[in-house]
Amino acid sequence: MSKSAPKLRIIPLGGLGEIGKNMTVIEYGQDMIVIDCGLAFPDEEMLGIDMVIPDISYLEANKDKLLGFIITHGHEDHIGSLPYTLDKLDAPVYATRFTLALIQHKLEEHGMENKCLCCIDAGDIIELGCFTIEFIKVNHSIAGAVAVAITTPVGVVIHTGDFKVDYTPVDHEPIDINRFAAYGANGVLALLMDSTNAELEGVTPSESELGKTFEKVFSEAKGRMIVASFASNVYRIQQVIDAAVRHNRVVCFQGRSMVNIARIAYELGYLELPENSVVDIDQLKNYEDDHICVMTTGSQGESMSGLFRMANANHKLIVGSGDTVMISASAIPGNERSVGRVINQLFKRGANVIYDRLADVHVSGHARREELKLMFRLLKPKYFIPVHGENRHLYRHARLAEEMGVAPQNVFIMDNGNVLEIGPKEAKLNGTVTAGSLLVDGLGVGDVGTTVLKERRHLSQEGMFSIIIPVQKSTGVLIGLPEIITRGFIYVKDSEELIGEAKQFALESSQTLLEKFPGPDWTQFIAAMKTAMKSFLLNKTKRTPIIVPIVVDIEC
Amino acid sequence: MSKSAPKLRIIPLGGLGEIGKNMTVIEYGQDMIVIDCGLAFPDEEMLGIDMVIPDISYLEANKDKLLGFIITHGHEDHIGSLPYTLDKLDAPVYATRFTLALIQHKLEEHGMENKCLCCIDAGDIIELGCFTIEFIKVNHSIAGAVAVAITTPVGVVIHTGDFKVDYTPVDHEPIDINRFAAYGANGVLALLMDSTNAELEGVTPSESELGKTFEKVFSEAKGRMIVASFASNVYRIQQVIDAAVRHNRVVCFQGRSMVNIARIAYELGYLELPENSVVDIDQLKNYEDDHICVMTTGSQGESMSGLFRMANANHKLIVGSGDTVMISASAIPGNERSVGRVINQLFKRGANVIYDRLADVHVSGHARREELKLMFRLLKPKYFIPVHGENRHLYRHARLAEEMGVAPQNVFIMDNGNVLEIGPKEAKLNGTVTAGSLLVDGLGVGDVGTTVLKERRHLSQEGMFSIIIPVQKSTGVLIGLPEIITRGFIYVKDSEELIGEAKQFALESSQTLLEKFPGPDWTQFIAAMKTAMKSFLLNKTKRTPIIVPIVVDIEC
Repeated sequence: MSKSAPKLRIIPLGGLGEIGKNMTVIEYGQDMIVIDCGLAFPDEEMLGIDMVIPDISYLEANKDKLLGFIITHGHEDHIGSLPYTLDKLDAPVYATRFTLALIQHKLEEHGMENKCLCCIDAGDIIELGCFTIEFIKVNHSIAGAVAVAITTPVGVVIHTGDFKVDYTPVDHEPIDINRFAAYGANGVLALLMDSTNAELEGVTPSESELGKTFEKVFSEAKGRMIVASFASNVYRIQQVIDAAVRHNRVVCFQGRSMVNIARIAYELGYLELPENSVVDIDQLKNYEDDHICVMTTGSQGESMSGLFRMANANHKLIVGSGDTVMISASAIPGNERSVGRVINQLFKRGANVIYDRLADVHVSGHARREELKLMFRLLKPKYFIPVHGENRHLYRHARLAEEMGVAPQNVFIMDNGNVLEIGPKEAKLNGTVTAGSLLVDGLGVGDVGTTVLKERRHLSQEGMFSIIIPVQKSTGVLIGLPEIITRGFIYVKDSEELIGEAKQFALESSQTLLEKFPGPDWTQFIAAMKTAMKSFLLNKTKRTPIIVPIVVDIEC
Repeated sequence: MSKSAPKLRIIPLGGLGEIGKNMTVIEYGQDMIVIDCGLAFPDEEMLGIDMVIPDISYLEANKDKLLGFIITHGHEDHIGSLPYTLDKLDAPVYATRFTLALIQHKLEEHGMENKCLCCIDAGDIIELGCFTIEFIKVNHSIAGAVAVAITTPVGVVIHTGDFKVDYTPVDHEPIDINRFAAYGANGVLALLMDSTNAELEGVTPSESELGKTFEKVFSEAKGRMIVASFASNVYRIQQVIDAAVRHNRVVCFQGRSMVNIARIAYELGYLELPENSVVDIDQLKNYEDDHICVMTTGSQGESMSGLFRMANANHKLIVGSGDTVMISASAIPGNERSVGRVINQLFKRGANVIYDRLADVHVSGHARREELKLMFRLLKPKYFIPVHGENRHLYRHARLAEEMGVAPQNVFIMDNGNVLEIGPKEAKLNGTVTAGSLLVDGLGVGDVGTTVLKERRHLSQEGMFSIIIPVQKSTGVLIGLPEIITRGFIYVKDSEELIGEAKQFALESSQTLLEKFPGPDWTQFIAAMKTAMKSFLLNKTKRTPIIVPIVVDIEC
């Protein structure tokens, strides 16, 4: 290899320092591929934001190199920004059948068709430019998950995608550890591995372990069984269906995503539904309570979900005394209170509620430390980059890599946008490219930024207080009484006295301040008015709404 | 007892269906006492609210009967609304020494003095009207916690307060199970018991178990030790101090409540500080890193706390590489993300972070199911009312009571405001009294209600869009261009085109609509303008801010 041979570049554009919007660039010379294309859900600071997508300026600037998107599985944090990305960059998308079906469904919802979607299977090998890419079956909480082994001119890079090691999976297809072993035997240059559960000792239990809990819960249920879980976890749904059928219950799917994904999974053969086992909600009246199982969305307590509406009597099917409700999930961080609220409400309606504090109703889809150790032992990577995690996960994972024999200088904790360059002899972080978060709000992508969020935050805490000051343009004198408009500050109907005083104060201040700061440039007047009103309101209420004085210049 | 003898009335005014603002009325004839007087922290729907206190209309209406407040311990959810309550109702407050010191501190902060505060000890017995009240030592995550046994004309009522059963507590004073046993032997009419951990099997570990973890963490720490915990948990602080002293480290307290409570606890003898063991932050420069221990607030990731500021380089003491940070707490539901964020930031600064996912750094202060069972066995109550819990805790606790032999018809799951009447032969729920939540925002108590919160919610998601329409009063015609003011909707500087179009639209719509709906009553005009602008903006942005058209009548 000549001295000027290009280096392999690994550039995460999302998914590092966060759980969400996974996107990793692999680049060599004039060839570039992208692994995953996800969205993140807004955190509680991002008021009014629908979703967060990665900034793809770097891809746009290098679109001539882009050979394709490789999608490891169909969760939103891996496929969610495809509609936005494919809108700007036309490149083929490679994924397994189930993943592609979810992508297709998503693109259709965005009115996007005729995108180049290429179906691959675990075990397949494709070539894109200088890269040879093998897809390796892994276990995860969704069907069709794969890792990728990318043979590059400098060596093999393995990206695990999201995975766990399940020796007894529901679909009887365990992770292909033999293929990982084969790559390990031949030498792995770099490993990028899922860090989600790098804090947790031991192994994540098998998905099939839940069958035992389900069997027990179904045996003991006297009335209707209502189960809430993640729509995309086909294995979970299959186990619920199996338990229902064993206990002579028909299954009714509720919730938009549950109905959609169950249909897709059934059509593709990922879900086995015995004949006559599934019924429509209107048919439930033909069955006794103890012959009914409802499978719904809402395991995170989402306010528009099936379970939430059933718990709050805002659904055809209302939860009541005698019902058993099983929430087969655990709260995603940030959702604890909303999940708690729906559980409280279900108890209040008289249901017997089974949830993660009371029984083993959920297992994670991500590998814990013992499983991560297995992968380190199988793959013996020279370089290691923990991915898919917040900083705490990445740091714990990095320390684990060192304990497992990766040289500390070969472990790279990266940020989104960092460039890791790997040559034949060494690897090093070398600069950064544009990377970041674009906030999606309605039709706007990236137009809501810090300023607007700060305003929303302030409005949410204190509300808004506007003072409208009509002024004669020619003379600069007040030609009417100041008006006050307020929202989110105080209940106006009960606060006539305060509003009256504020109007009077505004009138007097306007008169004084108009003399001091005459127009036509009102900047100083407005600033002074704001200060005066702020201190008036603070004194009266100890609150500080956004204060907006507006001078209306009238020509008359 | 004659047929018309009064019945014992138990009325929770707070703390049922929620964890927070505990307050329970015990009433017989003309005598009334109140157990606890707490506040609740606002949930995430209560935008801009400082705290939530119970509605005490019922107490105000019966203030002639009120003999005193009995406070079980000094946590905010048991003492936090005293300043508001004592402002309206003057009655003596009974509590143990440490609890009273915290109350005193709180009242001073509110500028309230000369309130009648009566110091009692565990083991003391007082008489208030027809009630004889014994205070019984219990273990909890704060010093000075007691249960109360109230002998009433109809029998003994026991309220556990918040408690756990700790056989090896840090202060060597375990819960006085002998006194509970004695009451049980003589017959307990009704039991009100802490439900916080009624979902959890087994027993809560002893506070002193943490000493082992602390010893290990301190032995391994090479640089500075920084420990964050709850300021009010004196036992926790003592164990940190003990570990620090054993490892030749001086202790520096940081964070307002940590400094205040440590001072109070030390003055009252609840905290033992060996000579020269505590130093001021400015003295730390005189010590090597491995001789320093900082004890701070911020275990919940609160944005103004010591730990948060140390993690974000906004404090005299900045966390860095080599530091060991131990967060001796678990996230209170709702705080998971903020705790996670501070952990991420600490890792990013290079610290070794020890938290609940990695080590046994925290134990709860509340009894789990085996401890609750012990109390049922000791007390054998006739009636049982689970308290201090959300519905799910109350329901689980109620079922446990039944398993432990309380007759199902004698178990009462109550709501705040429900009245439980207990006579010599039977108990029944009989009506309700006013109870509820008052939201405190700045100086306002109860003036922010549903309407304002709805506005804040809407503003927080979509912002506000005002249109100011100047109209000549005499003619009702437009006498200037409509002005637009917006906050939290869109970044105005980058949206000149949209704002320009909106102004033009407002102008045209005003002209049309003023003809259709002339003044002087502008109600219809405003409604029509709102609808028109709403659909204009929805179409352009898919967003729906609060739209406020304002007509400014100008006399000229």
